[in-house]
Amino acid sequence: MAFSESPQLTDLYQLTMVQSYLDHDMQDQAVFEFFVRSLPDKRNFLMAAGLEQLLDFLTQTKFSQKELDYLANSGFFRDNLIDYLSKFRFTGQVDAMPEGTLFFANEPIVRITAPLPEAQLIETRLINLLQLPTLVATKAARCRLAAKDKLLVDFGLRRAHGSEAGMLAARASYLATFDGTSNVLAGQHYGIPVYGTMAHSYVQAHESETQAFRHFAASQPDNLVLLVDTYDTFRGTERVIELAEALKAEGVTIKALRLDSGDLGDEAVRVRELLDQHGHQEIGIFASSSVDEYLLMQMHYEQSPITGYGIGTHLTTSEDAPYLNCAYKLEEYAGIARRKRSHGKATRPGSKQVFRHYDKDGKIAYDELCIASEEPESGQPLLETVMQNGQRLKVPESLDIIRHRVKEQIQTLPADLAHLTRKEEFELRISPALQKLTDETNKQFNF
Amino acid sequence: MAFSESPQLTDLYQLTMVQSYLDHDMQDQAVFEFFVRSLPDKRNFLMAAGLEQLLDFLTQTKFSQKELDYLANSGFFRDNLIDYLSKFRFTGQVDAMPEGTLFFANEPIVRITAPLPEAQLIETRLINLLQLPTLVATKAARCRLAAKDKLLVDFGLRRAHGSEAGMLAARASYLATFDGTSNVLAGQHYGIPVYGTMAHSYVQAHESETQAFRHFAASQPDNLVLLVDTYDTFRGTERVIELAEALKAEGVTIKALRLDSGDLGDEAVRVRELLDQHGHQEIGIFASSSVDEYLLMQMHYEQSPITGYGIGTHLTTSEDAPYLNCAYKLEEYAGIARRKRSHGKATRPGSKQVFRHYDKDGKIAYDELCIASEEPESGQPLLETVMQNGQRLKVPESLDIIRHRVKEQIQTLPADLAHLTRKEEFELRISPALQKLTDETNKQFNF
Repeated sequence: MAFSESPQLTDLYQLTMVQSYLDHDMQDQAVFEFFVRSLPDKRNFLMAAGLEQLLDFLTQTKFSQKELDYLANSGFFRDNLIDYLSKFRFTGQVDAMPEGTLFFANEPIVRITAPLPEAQLIETRLINLLQLPTLVATKAARCRLAAKDKLLVDFGLRRAHGSEAGMLAARASYLATFDGTSNVLAGQHYGIPVYGTMAHSYVQAHESETQAFRHFAASQPDNLVLLVDTYDTFRGTERVIELAEALKAEGVTIKALRLDSGDLGDEAVRVRELLDQHGHQEIGIFASSSVDEYLLMQMHYEQSPITGYGIGTHLTTSEDAPYLNCAYKLEEYAGIARRKRSHGKATRPGSKQVFRHYDKDGKIAYDELCIASEEPESGQPLLETVMQNGQRLKVPESLDIIRHRVKEQIQTLPADLAHLTRKEEFELRISPALQKLTDETNKQFNF
Repeated sequence: MAFSESPQLTDLYQLTMVQSYLDHDMQDQAVFEFFVRSLPDKRNFLMAAGLEQLLDFLTQTKFSQKELDYLANSGFFRDNLIDYLSKFRFTGQVDAMPEGTLFFANEPIVRITAPLPEAQLIETRLINLLQLPTLVATKAARCRLAAKDKLLVDFGLRRAHGSEAGMLAARASYLATFDGTSNVLAGQHYGIPVYGTMAHSYVQAHESETQAFRHFAASQPDNLVLLVDTYDTFRGTERVIELAEALKAEGVTIKALRLDSGDLGDEAVRVRELLDQHGHQEIGIFASSSVDEYLLMQMHYEQSPITGYGIGTHLTTSEDAPYLNCAYKLEEYAGIARRKRSHGKATRPGSKQVFRHYDKDGKIAYDELCIASEEPESGQPLLETVMQNGQRLKVPESLDIIRHRVKEQIQTLPADLAHLTRKEEFELRISPALQKLTDETNKQFNF
């Protein structure tokens, strides 16, 4: 199932529309923008991610002969389309917010400028590639806000929605300052640190818990985290303590115990007390099982002794917000601004830029949405040109650089927008020139 | 990003555990079962899906040299593991419920019998491959229950979590009796009927809505669905009516109008009235925009004139239940039943089978969970052996066969379990022999 660079991974209507564009010679330049109409509940910011994979897709996508044969025989299309698709490569321009940038509702994150059929053909996969990384980076950034400097590891591959979701989520959470992932292929492919402990099945396969711990210590002396809740957490911890001295004599240090069930807060306190009573302050407590930013806030509030977390399902599915109300809309065609006015889905016309304004403490004060060609006297433009004529303008950004940006971005978040549960207002100003263009477009397309 | 057959797409702990199993010569037969601990809110049944992709994975998965090199240099492993992994192929047995089977909490859907390291190594991807199709097939089956015989089409690729999710969701919804998908690659790859209309951008790119409709009719005379809500739904519908006679004279029939915003129920009634006033009973109404089983129930209740639905985001993300509380657990090792007793996550030990019992009307009465070797006097066994020695026992099932099974399965659903919003109880009996084994296992592993 190696489909991800295929332009055939699209909605049929993209192809039927392109058929019509070719039939009627509509191949002038179009501007489309990708944006989020409204933020999900409990989200006061989003974090842009996925641009790197989109640029890869745009530079590599082309139709295979097998795909063209399928389309030619589908009954929907004629030769002029098949001929066009056989030569199709993306030749347009991409302007985008760098990955890790904080953004808000109705702000273009990615702007595509290309001949209309090309810009249309890439819509489906563009949305598909940007939505999930943005969801997961945002969720991870929220977990980081809640957890402060605790160790945070992506454990979510198994319940991610397919393999690509698992890979994209490992990358998106790491760029949003997670410490690593359990996903070995993501470790290899993206250079992300990998973490792992043991499963309950490992303990169960042994005749006793102590034997299981001894075996694991022998096999992983430098990476020893022991899962203590297979049968009874307290007894499991006692067994670890019984072993710890003997292991120390062999030069083996137990890094941490792992808890994966029950009330993690209560269990951790009991386990910490027992460890401390026996002088094992050096052994940490690593917890997993339904962890999300809300549990992390609770643990912080309780001053929990947990030192690290494995965060799985809730991270990689973005459980409390598994989708974005996002769209990729035509804003300009053949030099003329366009506007959709559908109920609840109206857009601002024209090619646009976002300018960010900060207060005297360096916190985000408001954003202003402008026509792309405007040059306002103040504000930081957020979209940069990253591709022209279908070619990248820069080498791919390293995850280290993006992580550095994320840390800077989080510093600019005002206290209210950093709230994880209460919904706050964000001010997106509309420039006078953009308002004028909106009014004019309404008049022009006043059908 | 063509990773899906790689065994490296796994959690690090699978590999550290296998390192230890090799070090301590623990390679006896193990039995693992995949099951769902509890059903999500509002779900009274689940529908099994994804087995076909799992069997593909099991027959094809092996480590590449590049992957082995990464592991060898990771610092976690020794030569005996790398050597084992270089020869790794899955050689075990798979027993499973056929795709499309209805199932309930704590019932094994897939059972793996294989040497312990093999059975352990496949865990992560097995869960990853089974969870999403099961979620989506279930969601699709619920939509079908709500929509009765209306046309239902998967529109969810763009907001699926990556490319593989989009493919798996198109297949899972079709097997659960959707009529087709907008996903062209899924159409090609799985032989699913593809559907498509036009986007707002198409209308916007034209100087007038009428011109857009004319152009589309010229290019897609046999597949003409016109989107009428780009500017004003009522005016858009009037323009279609103005065009309809002229098109008819050219031999072109308008199949349907499409609504994609606002209150779909109200808009459809207004549009239907207008079409009927002008004698266009033949033109259907196709609706999309945040459709799910709850909206479909409402539309059915209102006797809405909508004739078909495009169902996107809510389907492919399984929006109100984006994950399953599912697990893959060791039930037996080296001939001895095993049991996990972690708080809230306890399992029944041993290799198991599910027997289904029906009432006199052919509706599901209850299921009984038995030891796999039991031969109860009544009840239909749900798990079948589909793979032995790493080889499939049958050719892959066609989607037509699975769709037929789904229709039969839905017929067996009693009225209470067909409820889409109210949570109902389902009776899973435990056979006396299994209860006895549970008690014995508790005594044996009473650490």
